[in-house]
Amino acid sequence: MKIAVIMGSKSDLPKLESGIELIKSMGVDVVVRVLSAHRTPVELSTFLEEIEGNVDVIVAAAGKAAHLPGVVAAQTLIPVVGLPIKSSTMDGLDSLLSMVQMPGGIPVATVTIDSGLNAALMALQIGSIKYPEIKEQLKKYRIEIAQKVLDDDKSLNN
Amino acid sequence: MKIAVIMGSKSDLPKLESGIELIKSMGVDVVVRVLSAHRTPVELSTFLEEIEGNVDVIVAAAGKAAHLPGVVAAQTLIPVVGLPIKSSTMDGLDSLLSMVQMPGGIPVATVTIDSGLNAALMALQIGSIKYPEIKEQLKKYRIEIAQKVLDDDKSLNN
Amino acid sequence: MKIAVIMGSKSDLPKLESGIELIKSMGVDVVVRVLSAHRTPVELSTFLEEIEGNVDVIVAAAGKAAHLPGVVAAQTLIPVVGLPIKSSTMDGLDSLLSMVQMPGGIPVATVTIDSGLNAALMALQIGSIKYPEIKEQLKKYRIEIAQKVLDDDKSLNN
Amino acid sequence: MKIAVIMGSKSDLPKLESGIELIKSMGVDVVVRVLSAHRTPVELSTFLEEIEGNVDVIVAAAGKAAHLPGVVAAQTLIPVVGLPIKSSTMDGLDSLLSMVQMPGGIPVATVTIDSGLNAALMALQIGSIKYPEIKEQLKKYRIEIAQKVLDDDKSLNN
Amino acid sequence: MKIAVIMGSKSDLPKLESGIELIKSMGVDVVVRVLSAHRTPVELSTFLEEIEGNVDVIVAAAGKAAHLPGVVAAQTLIPVVGLPIKSSTMDGLDSLLSMVQMPGGIPVATVTIDSGLNAALMALQIGSIKYPEIKEQLKKYRIEIAQKVLDDDKSLNN
Amino acid sequence: MKIAVIMGSKSDLPKLESGIELIKSMGVDVVVRVLSAHRTPVELSTFLEEIEGNVDVIVAAAGKAAHLPGVVAAQTLIPVVGLPIKSSTMDGLDSLLSMVQMPGGIPVATVTIDSGLNAALMALQIGSIKYPEIKEQLKKYRIEIAQKVLDDDKSLNN
Amino acid sequence: MKIAVIMGSKSDLPKLESGIELIKSMGVDVVVRVLSAHRTPVELSTFLEEIEGNVDVIVAAAGKAAHLPGVVAAQTLIPVVGLPIKSSTMDGLDSLLSMVQMPGGIPVATVTIDSGLNAALMALQIGSIKYPEIKEQLKKYRIEIAQKVLDDDKSLNN
Amino acid sequence: MKIAVIMGSKSDLPKLESGIELIKSMGVDVVVRVLSAHRTPVELSTFLEEIEGNVDVIVAAAGKAAHLPGVVAAQTLIPVVGLPIKSSTMDGLDSLLSMVQMPGGIPVATVTIDSGLNAALMALQIGSIKYPEIKEQLKKYRIEIAQKVLDDDKSLNN
Repeated sequence: MKIAVIMGSKSDLPKLESGIELIKSMGVDVVVRVLSAHRTPVELSTFLEEIEGNVDVIVAAAGKAAHLPGVVAAQTLIPVVGLPIKSSTMDGLDSLLSMVQMPGGIPVATVTIDSGLNAALMALQIGSIKYPEIKEQLKKYRIEIAQKVLDDDKSLNN
Repeated sequence: MKIAVIMGSKSDLPKLESGIELIKSMGVDVVVRVLSAHRTPVELSTFLEEIEGNVDVIVAAAGKAAHLPGVVAAQTLIPVVGLPIKSSTMDGLDSLLSMVQMPGGIPVATVTIDSGLNAALMALQIGSIKYPEIKEQLKKYRIEIAQKVLDDDKSLNN
Repeated sequence: MKIAVIMGSKSDLPKLESGIELIKSMGVDVVVRVLSAHRTPVELSTFLEEIEGNVDVIVAAAGKAAHLPGVVAAQTLIPVVGLPIKSSTMDGLDSLLSMVQMPGGIPVATVTIDSGLNAALMALQIGSIKYPEIKEQLKKYRIEIAQKVLDDDKSLNN
Repeated sequence: MKIAVIMGSKSDLPKLESGIELIKSMGVDVVVRVLSAHRTPVELSTFLEEIEGNVDVIVAAAGKAAHLPGVVAAQTLIPVVGLPIKSSTMDGLDSLLSMVQMPGGIPVATVTIDSGLNAALMALQIGSIKYPEIKEQLKKYRIEIAQKVLDDDKSLNN
Repeated sequence: MKIAVIMGSKSDLPKLESGIELIKSMGVDVVVRVLSAHRTPVELSTFLEEIEGNVDVIVAAAGKAAHLPGVVAAQTLIPVVGLPIKSSTMDGLDSLLSMVQMPGGIPVATVTIDSGLNAALMALQIGSIKYPEIKEQLKKYRIEIAQKVLDDDKSLNN
Repeated sequence: MKIAVIMGSKSDLPKLESGIELIKSMGVDVVVRVLSAHRTPVELSTFLEEIEGNVDVIVAAAGKAAHLPGVVAAQTLIPVVGLPIKSSTMDGLDSLLSMVQMPGGIPVATVTIDSGLNAALMALQIGSIKYPEIKEQLKKYRIEIAQKVLDDDKSLNN
Repeated sequence: MKIAVIMGSKSDLPKLESGIELIKSMGVDVVVRVLSAHRTPVELSTFLEEIEGNVDVIVAAAGKAAHLPGVVAAQTLIPVVGLPIKSSTMDGLDSLLSMVQMPGGIPVATVTIDSGLNAALMALQIGSIKYPEIKEQLKKYRIEIAQKVLDDDKSLNN
Repeated sequence: MKIAVIMGSKSDLPKLESGIELIKSMGVDVVVRVLSAHRTPVELSTFLEEIEGNVDVIVAAAGKAAHLPGVVAAQTLIPVVGLPIKSSTMDGLDSLLSMVQMPGGIPVATVTIDSGLNAALMALQIGSIKYPEIKEQLKKYRIEIAQKVLDDDKSLNN
């Protein structure tokens, strides 16, 4: 399985890092790129053509009027997971609406604002319908996060 | 390929119909259920156990404090596409936030408010990473919707 | 009287502490748990079955797409007080709407965002309809908070 | 058990009717009043004094800057369930925030905008901690609403 | 002329101070009180009775579900200027809507969130329709703030 | 006493009519004008100069980016009551924020969206600090609206 | 002078018509196209290349996650006026934020939601810096809309 | 080419500085003024008369109920680019709506909240329809910002 992670600006990287690490920790190939829908549309299109046929899912992160995931989704049938990034104004609502409210025909699979983790997990879950080994990894991950809650619960009551 | 469509209330059906038709028109199996996260949690769980292993993607639609997609996502690793339904107050913002803002670990792939079409398309795109024949159908669909825009453009200029 | 306090994540604890202290200061039994509607649904259900018949009110706190109170409310008839927690985006609006906008049939008694104190007080007020001694304590508490306002007023004018 | 239902304006009645009917159908006493926090504060206080000791829960409904539930809650320790009513502007957000965001010390148990049903159910659930016969009725009600979902589900698949 | 300034909590004082100073600097009598609509309703009413006939305008400041100005306005015909205070959640929108959206019959003259200065100025402008000497002071104040803009403009271009 | 009512567009008139009637019914002089801050700024300024010294309060109503009350307030020290008008988008939030959020120095006394009645009442209350006969009329009006609530209450319980 | 008007969907046409008529009435050339940023990106790019050098201003209208104006602006230096279209949910806020909040480097000149008239006027004003004859027409237009206000004012006072 | 930059308060300067520098770096004349629509309306009008005929585009920045761009636009046909400034409450939504939602007839070309850069770029793009040398500069600027993205992309993958 292979995932492409695209961010509209390098400043979005901190929000994506935990997700990228998770993908790698599951032994999944990942290519990470900074490509802007508005500033480098040609390079973005070139990249999308390159990955056609060898990438299973795309994660696209952007802030403000976050067009990147939608512009990507318009150029490929690879499923696009959109990660809205909160910027210094509007508390993330602008990027959320710019992603999730895609017009009929070209959907973006939008996840929690600023949660690179959830973007990565959704990409992995999508991949898991084809790659059963990912599903096993995700099962283990779910057990781990459940265990963390149980540990927190125990620590609270001791 | 097989898709399960779950709605929290039968009143959500009109928003889903165009999507369900699209799925069927592509020759994809679809099972459509009314199951509530709050009113029939046991039946919901039973259904989720039944489909494990023979459904590829789930579409879950709900309005207001729309917990259904998140509750489903918590019980399975099958990717869940969330469709927020606008009810009589809050213009769809309540269902959108109740779906998309899932806490870290259990993402929901949220799409355009009230767009059963986009929910269906995202489910099909996800399925297409495993079933190449779906990808061919989606390519044709994209050509059709592009043609519709071009026809509208032509009609405007004649 | 006995109150169960459930939080979706241990990180919600600081918002709950003043409320838990208040409950204890009134001599009311309280059990405090970390249990997630999404990550530990089975343990949550087990706990809800355990407390049936010996807990009078439940306080459930959660952030983002805050399903916990609704999921709890769906599994019991014990009244559920919902405490929306503000996270790093959307200023608390997401958790508020995810709690208060419950569909018809399964209400959650939602209180002020981030106010563990108000959640505790509402739980105690509910309990007081059965336990007259709590009502006496609450009367004293109201006199105390009124006195604090009067003291502030006096300090301002001296 | 006895419930008092107060509305700030008679125009709120249609939103409350299904709730009032439900209360009556469970054999619970209910007194319904039109009393305004701003226009008839004296009559409101008089009524609150009268019901002290013989009403278990209060439901208070109001629109716009919906002070009624908070003003009631400030004058009694009887639990107050707040029902925000959507008016012609702001889509219910104004009444929701005016109710749920009560300052520390005087909480209001706020439920779904415009859902008189949920307000009634929350009042009944609160009462049920003292009156076991109400709990039995609520159990039956939950079975009924679950059955309605199951019937809808069946009708869809036949 | 005499102005009464009421705040729902002493924590609102910093937002009011510049306004109180302005009132004093214009030689207008001002009484400043901490009185809560919910925690000290009786003392609030007593104060409102006392000032009847010897206070010209009331400034009332409050945060969250900010009922204070509306509750005051319901008990007197003295014009009430409402100052919404931003608290730790909802960015001031809750207090703004809780004040400005008063139901028909009992208006509150709401001003800029957190601007004690604008609340004081509006109170003084209202007073000035009766006290011509205040109008003269306000004219001077307007010239001063205009001069400040002109000075800033000059400093920028030197 | 004399009140000037200015609307930015004749289409705002229906929202103002009940307020204008109330003013007239109390025997108060009222001049009603359509004058736009943006389209007829010169005529607006001329009118404001004319009324200086013979109008006590101004009511200014406008929709969308509702600058009229603020532009008026900048040109006079007569108190300006701002009435936000809901237009076909944004549910009144745009006009509300454009009025109430005036920068420090030039406040607008903003009232309930679309409530010409509350705008008129606030203007009358402001006038009443100078004209005791208005205060008497307002007292009667309060008794009437209280009586209407009491009548509604009675009709409900008969 | 020449203006290109692009809409993302033919359903946006009714909101644009008054603007298109205004442009024509001023004798300005206008080309009107239906072209989608997501469904017909290639045709859109082709059109943008064609108009380079012979169109002065572009008006781009779109609803929901309204990427069209931003995607256009990324491909040309011709100024782009963005017209947000209100769709069936979110009251226009989604399209507004998707347009106006463009990231640094590629601005869109966003105007009033649903106001094709204001989009056309802004395009004409921009053109008028190069074509003095347009400025003369705009001066006449301003006199006309001012006259309409004055006529409305007169009709009200007769 | 000449651009006028007007800010409503000197405190807005930090948000404008990168834009002003960009304008200067392209060899375009710029005059920068602090002038308030509300506090110095006369000086603002005088300035607008002075620049008539020798300024091509105006940038106007303001916060809160940001009337400045609209008031400027009402007095001139020079295109006005509006820059909404985020203040301490409402996250920039108040200034955005106060600018962009201008009533029909007097549009403001609104850009990204707090982005002085985008305001400057839009002003330059508008100017470039008359001054071809600006267009050349803007082409170089676009290449530079694209290069920055490509450099970031390279740095990430090395």
